[in-house]
Amino acid sequence: MHPDDELRRLNLALPSYPAPTANYAQYRLVGDLLYLAGQNPRLPDGTLCTGKLGRDLTTEEGYIHARHAGLNLLAVANEVLGDLDRVTAVVKVFGMVNATPDFTDHPKVINGCSDLMVAVFGRERGIHPRSAVGFVSLPFGISVEIEAIMQVRL
Amino acid sequence: MHPDDELRRLNLALPSYPAPTANYAQYRLVGDLLYLAGQNPRLPDGTLCTGKLGRDLTTEEGYIHARHAGLNLLAVANEVLGDLDRVTAVVKVFGMVNATPDFTDHPKVINGCSDLMVAVFGRERGIHPRSAVGFVSLPFGISVEIEAIMQVRL
Amino acid sequence: MHPDDELRRLNLALPSYPAPTANYAQYRLVGDLLYLAGQNPRLPDGTLCTGKLGRDLTTEEGYIHARHAGLNLLAVANEVLGDLDRVTAVVKVFGMVNATPDFTDHPKVINGCSDLMVAVFGRERGIHPRSAVGFVSLPFGISVEIEAIMQVRL
Repeated sequence: MHPDDELRRLNLALPSYPAPTANYAQYRLVGDLLYLAGQNPRLPDGTLCTGKLGRDLTTEEGYIHARHAGLNLLAVANEVLGDLDRVTAVVKVFGMVNATPDFTDHPKVINGCSDLMVAVFGRERGIHPRSAVGFVSLPFGISVEIEAIMQVRL
Repeated sequence: MHPDDELRRLNLALPSYPAPTANYAQYRLVGDLLYLAGQNPRLPDGTLCTGKLGRDLTTEEGYIHARHAGLNLLAVANEVLGDLDRVTAVVKVFGMVNATPDFTDHPKVINGCSDLMVAVFGRERGIHPRSAVGFVSLPFGISVEIEAIMQVRL
Repeated sequence: MHPDDELRRLNLALPSYPAPTANYAQYRLVGDLLYLAGQNPRLPDGTLCTGKLGRDLTTEEGYIHARHAGLNLLAVANEVLGDLDRVTAVVKVFGMVNATPDFTDHPKVINGCSDLMVAVFGRERGIHPRSAVGFVSLPFGISVEIEAIMQVRL
């Protein structure tokens, strides 16, 4: 099934292309590898999800935020490639969680992004190596930020 | 010398292949680059080494934990490649240390992994660029987590 | 304009090649990708810039420290390549900020490195995807550490 159909099936819509908030680019394509900048949990209306896991948010709320960060990764890939079906593999994900010193459920939070990738691209293309770890603070107080590398059909 | 012989010389054994603890893969091979998921300091009996550097553990204990994380990286590479001698270069290591705000010896901790890579693959193949930095918290309270990219012979 | 000329125009000089402070290399070249180790905000006289953003340093001071880390990235690239003009693209930057739990201006700090890359290589070659995030502690108490991947002309 086409990634766009999977998104519809999940009742999810891609947000608009996120404008960089500083002097950087959202992506760089080198060979067939698409490097994506760390994406925020930005809602379709532009609001940023904020808060610290272990203090302000439940793991379930963090999971939803990570899915929003994943949707922004897909929005950038879709804009660059014109068609999400050109993604041949999710190569790597780095999941950054705004967390307290004693928080331990980073993997469950970042699953919000990983589950999305597997659902949208199917298991073979969408499954990926990753780390999901705790940061003392993130820009604008956002709850999660997620980077990815994707392999694409040229 | 073959990496397996170096491991025997060091009196170290590879742990079993680590099952992913969430919805991700342990690796992705793209071209001749093997991307490895962040590995835990998992002992051969499955126990995870936990604790925070600067509070619960000495730098020397952290060094041993980082070596265990490195052995898990090698266990994944060995499973994927069938033969560790197919690793032609350790391309990049990212060493994540569960640490207090005032800890400063992250490099000495992550040397536990870097020393292992250099010993097992020899200096030319095993030496690598890296960062070794402090995280406010890591999954399950583990003390270190380490990612790597390796170049392999196809 | 040649990157060396841009550096002169900015009245900036490359520091000497930084010796690794532990068992790692400053770089690994694989294909046309140059992976650079995390660089410190090391001044030309060897002093390391230290301190925590949100407690010890202003965002403006952090910006200058990030520029020093960027200059060390350029010093390594220049030593490896012999000529900075062989850099065809800054592929990825990872900006690590030593920060308090409530700091939120990581992007403004890491702009010190990103602005340098764009100025030295020009916008098309120098602009890059990145993340700029908060670490609970960094080696030797440094204020920032920055990793990069560059594409180079072989």
